[in-house]
Amino acid sequence: MDHVLRLKALLPALSKNNLDALVVTHMPNVRYLCGFTGSSGVLLVTPKGVTFFTDGRYTEQAAQQVKGAKVVTSKGPPVAGAAKLMARFRGALGFEGDHTTVSARQSLLNFFPTAVRLKAVQGIVESLRLLKDANELAQIRAAVNLGSELFRPAVEAIRPGIRESQVAAEIEYAARKSGAEKMSFETIVASGQRSALPHGVASSSPIAAKGFVILDYGVILHGYCSDMTRTVHVGRVPLRARQMYRSVLEAQEAAIAAVAPGVGVGKVDAAARSVLRKAKLDRYFTHSTGHGVGLEIHEQPRVARGETSILRPGMVITIEPGVYLPGTGGVRIEDMVVVTERGCEILTSTTKELIEI
Amino acid sequence: MDHVLRLKALLPALSKNNLDALVVTHMPNVRYLCGFTGSSGVLLVTPKGVTFFTDGRYTEQAAQQVKGAKVVTSKGPPVAGAAKLMARFRGALGFEGDHTTVSARQSLLNFFPTAVRLKAVQGIVESLRLLKDANELAQIRAAVNLGSELFRPAVEAIRPGIRESQVAAEIEYAARKSGAEKMSFETIVASGQRSALPHGVASSSPIAAKGFVILDYGVILHGYCSDMTRTVHVGRVPLRARQMYRSVLEAQEAAIAAVAPGVGVGKVDAAARSVLRKAKLDRYFTHSTGHGVGLEIHEQPRVARGETSILRPGMVITIEPGVYLPGTGGVRIEDMVVVTERGCEILTSTTKELIEI
Repeated sequence: MDHVLRLKALLPALSKNNLDALVVTHMPNVRYLCGFTGSSGVLLVTPKGVTFFTDGRYTEQAAQQVKGAKVVTSKGPPVAGAAKLMARFRGALGFEGDHTTVSARQSLLNFFPTAVRLKAVQGIVESLRLLKDANELAQIRAAVNLGSELFRPAVEAIRPGIRESQVAAEIEYAARKSGAEKMSFETIVASGQRSALPHGVASSSPIAAKGFVILDYGVILHGYCSDMTRTVHVGRVPLRARQMYRSVLEAQEAAIAAVAPGVGVGKVDAAARSVLRKAKLDRYFTHSTGHGVGLEIHEQPRVARGETSILRPGMVITIEPGVYLPGTGGVRIEDMVVVTERGCEILTSTTKELIEI
Repeated sequence: MDHVLRLKALLPALSKNNLDALVVTHMPNVRYLCGFTGSSGVLLVTPKGVTFFTDGRYTEQAAQQVKGAKVVTSKGPPVAGAAKLMARFRGALGFEGDHTTVSARQSLLNFFPTAVRLKAVQGIVESLRLLKDANELAQIRAAVNLGSELFRPAVEAIRPGIRESQVAAEIEYAARKSGAEKMSFETIVASGQRSALPHGVASSSPIAAKGFVILDYGVILHGYCSDMTRTVHVGRVPLRARQMYRSVLEAQEAAIAAVAPGVGVGKVDAAARSVLRKAKLDRYFTHSTGHGVGLEIHEQPRVARGETSILRPGMVITIEPGVYLPGTGGVRIEDMVVVTERGCEILTSTTKELIEI
């Protein structure tokens, strides 16, 4: 099974970080490594074996789901169980600095015996998650396909006067009926002037009689996230709006064309910005070009100016440039792509032609 | 406005914790103090005034929402803006130890000048949030009422063979149509043997032909959460199941009867357990009796064994005992209550009579 392979792949990272053991508490990392999908648990990876600790609520679920690790259920906090098992351990125990609060670190210090040297480490499991394996790619494809199919009910729901939140309701209902576990983030439906908000979560405002509507949403299916954005127009599209849409689409396609193994993410970001610069719209593109997606909606790599990550086959990222004219409106177009051996494959299948409603 | 009062109420807590200033990064705390509802921002509270830092995505939104604080938008991370403002500050700057990761603490250390003594503090804003003010209570009532009204569409959706996730879809669709921003947690629909899972998030399993179905869900309305659980029965209720339901209901009512100002939360928990002990069901009650609810779905106080918080008027908590017979089924009944001057008021208005479907 994949989980056993993933746990094995972790061991070189441990020695590279001079760790004798690792305690994993970030739930997406726990899920990735051992398959447990609940909300509470601790995975302890030691040279002697892997143990998963959880509480009484998850006894049955852990028995069904966890692969590659022994399951221990205890009454107290799961970390107390882990500390007990480490009573005679001597050496360096890594913990996840990016996901452990200052208070939780203190609690680790209190639970674990003093012979355990606690050491904050960053991104050990995330660096494995960066490259999606075949199983993950299949799950991501399924999630993206489900998301793509929601565009039609979304467009059908849009008409002037309907609340943005009602459009979101239709998208989310269709998602659930198609089997989505939940949305991967708060659904964005931003109409008229609100489309100039890069992060315009669906509000109680009515869909404006004229102008752009940005739809940005995603689903979670079998734990994996999708993320897509389309911008449609209510009423006939004025020439300037059509030009703006075309510029964003060209920027998005230029960034996608730049995606290939060995390419730095900064180059992908620059490809989008360069198109918008020519159209004198680059100063209205106020966010980064994209981000990794997987078990979490925002993963490595960030596709942004100043970032130095190099693309590799198996990475899954969004490409989502946008232009926002304050007080007027905005356009954003977003696909998910997977980096392949030769370039990339666009996962999102929804049309990018400008739709008039 | 409430936000100015709340910021004022914070000042005694600063001096009590020997702090000269406080940097607030936990977004529900930021929202509580200054009204900002976005996902990125830092609130800096100093003796000279209060400043809110955010990024370019939120320029407009911050200008509209933030009360009692000056707004500064910067290109870099918001915390960098805060650090810049503190260039000449000398003294102790508190940060939120419960919400700041070890990595984020390191980043604070890097950003702030060395004359700023960073000090992890716990629960300063949360201790204000513990007692809901009139405005918050009105918001919570509205959220709870919306949640209560979802019970009817939920019951109407349940029939044998329908997927649990389809029932969740109907609940969530009705929630959105009624104006909910989103659900306050993953909707639980757990049927038949799955009702023995205390945390049985709606799955693709069909509703069983016979047995209990646990429905546990909540909405977020204007930022405030609701939380409720009802258990219904598909098919005629066998005597033992009816007795089990009655015991859980009696336990729930006993716990509610115990809620009053000055009472320790442990006593409320014990009231529920004592009823279940008499019915020889206490060992199947594997979780705590309740928790605070407000801007977050899980807040202080925890209503559990060993907890020592004392109830005070204005606290809002859930009362939700449950009994889970592995391999058979479970029952949980949950209301939200607000502690009053004399006892408590039940906020959830949905019937607790056992419904046969």
